[in-house]
Amino acid sequence: MSAPTLIDGKKTAESVLAECEAEIADLKSKGVTPGLAVVLVGADPASTFYVRSKSKMCEKLGIHSVKLELPAETTQDELLKVIDDLNNDPAVHGILVQSPPPAHIDEAAIIAEIDPAKDVDGFHPVNVAKLALEDASGFVPCTPAGCQRLLTEYGIETEGANVVVLGRSMIVGKPMALLMMAKGKGANSTVTVAHSRTKDLEAVTREADILIAAIGKPEFVKAGGVKDGAVVIDVGINRVDDASQKKGYRIVGDVAFDEVAPKCKAITPVPGGVGPMTIAMLMANTVKACKQITGN
Amino acid sequence: MSAPTLIDGKKTAESVLAECEAEIADLKSKGVTPGLAVVLVGADPASTFYVRSKSKMCEKLGIHSVKLELPAETTQDELLKVIDDLNNDPAVHGILVQSPPPAHIDEAAIIAEIDPAKDVDGFHPVNVAKLALEDASGFVPCTPAGCQRLLTEYGIETEGANVVVLGRSMIVGKPMALLMMAKGKGANSTVTVAHSRTKDLEAVTREADILIAAIGKPEFVKAGGVKDGAVVIDVGINRVDDASQKKGYRIVGDVAFDEVAPKCKAITPVPGGVGPMTIAMLMANTVKACKQITGN
Repeated sequence: MSAPTLIDGKKTAESVLAECEAEIADLKSKGVTPGLAVVLVGADPASTFYVRSKSKMCEKLGIHSVKLELPAETTQDELLKVIDDLNNDPAVHGILVQSPPPAHIDEAAIIAEIDPAKDVDGFHPVNVAKLALEDASGFVPCTPAGCQRLLTEYGIETEGANVVVLGRSMIVGKPMALLMMAKGKGANSTVTVAHSRTKDLEAVTREADILIAAIGKPEFVKAGGVKDGAVVIDVGINRVDDASQKKGYRIVGDVAFDEVAPKCKAITPVPGGVGPMTIAMLMANTVKACKQITGN
Repeated sequence: MSAPTLIDGKKTAESVLAECEAEIADLKSKGVTPGLAVVLVGADPASTFYVRSKSKMCEKLGIHSVKLELPAETTQDELLKVIDDLNNDPAVHGILVQSPPPAHIDEAAIIAEIDPAKDVDGFHPVNVAKLALEDASGFVPCTPAGCQRLLTEYGIETEGANVVVLGRSMIVGKPMALLMMAKGKGANSTVTVAHSRTKDLEAVTREADILIAAIGKPEFVKAGGVKDGAVVIDVGINRVDDASQKKGYRIVGDVAFDEVAPKCKAITPVPGGVGPMTIAMLMANTVKACKQITGN
């Protein structure tokens, strides 16, 4: 087989961001600036890193950025009040609360408090339902939306394709499945959701024309679980110890890249695959929210 | 192979209804009577038949039944007002609008108007989301809930089983898939959703340990699309012309029963399979709504 196409998430993310920039310029010419509020409770280092990346990207694109870093002791009621204020802030079109919050916070109740029109993470029940109902006014969660965009960007045929989604979370697995089984372009796939309880998992994933791995286990998918000529999208971002690295660890996906890649028609690397798409789709959702709210 | 088990929907529905009767007796002993309102717009004969069956079942069980048969000219606003009144009626715990309404009615907007706590059809976005989020306080649409109950009633192992759902509607296919991929008993399945755009459909359905046919095409599933020893649940209710019948037609499922049944471990007949379960689960949802609303 010839070498697989390496699906370049950084480059595709740049295309998405360029589209956002054009739309932001258009909105600004009409006197509207999109705004995104990112709320962080507590100072978890990974969360702090993600929140700052999101704010930086906003600034780069000219999106009004509100970054709220609240103390870990913030109460449920205080956080609900923060959300209400952001719901009512006309300069804010998108709101997200960085996950996971501290254990004393009821995350589902916080998400339900966000105005669905500003729910750019796509986790509010109204947006979950819109995805199931194929209502395009809703917000699709950023990671599945990014995976779908990678497939369309690389001209990968999804109609009638066997898509196997490995993992059934509400963040990736389920929305990914709903997205790919919907009617229309970039979708219309035959979708299988496999997970930790699936029997003979390799036999199931080996049926995939397009395998989307979102199970959160480092290098879980081996060559034996992948069909020759498959397209593999690796959602995993896992830290594994690595004494040879200065920081003592390296980041790997859910796919054992070195052994799987040679079998693939196309594959995403980790890092540089799905990762950059997630933040790009967040920016795109924020621009969409702004347009819908302001009627532009 | 030995003869397949015939999955008896009438008998299983009777079990569900007997459970409902016990719960209704308990509620009545506390001074509470569950109430179900069924709204019909226009006089479509099939819809009229369904609505009257539902009312009759309510009366049989001692559920307070409100049957509103509105003229076909009823406007959207008039219908919304009817829903609002039912939302505010403390004697009504369940509300359903018989589908399909006349073409001038925006059905999605009507469903969205129903108080989610009274949405016993499980079609309101809040309940769609609760199903995806595996929140047991929601209402599962009656037909998928009935299919799942048939499986558990007959002791069919679902954990790790390959479930293929044929059809991707919001009434059956998608909720059925979400239900079977959820965590827990009677679920935990590996779920594939196949549909009209699926390539080599028979090869896909032939992988099913449990095949749930909800594609709405008479006798569409042939023996070649079914694995030896599969369990087949036939959701289809299709009329086909039949001059040998007094009424000029007969009812068949989505499965070519005569050729498929000999390959099966178990199969539902049509009629007498899924059909009776749908109305039984509607009664169960009404009792559940009443209990949740009244805190019993």
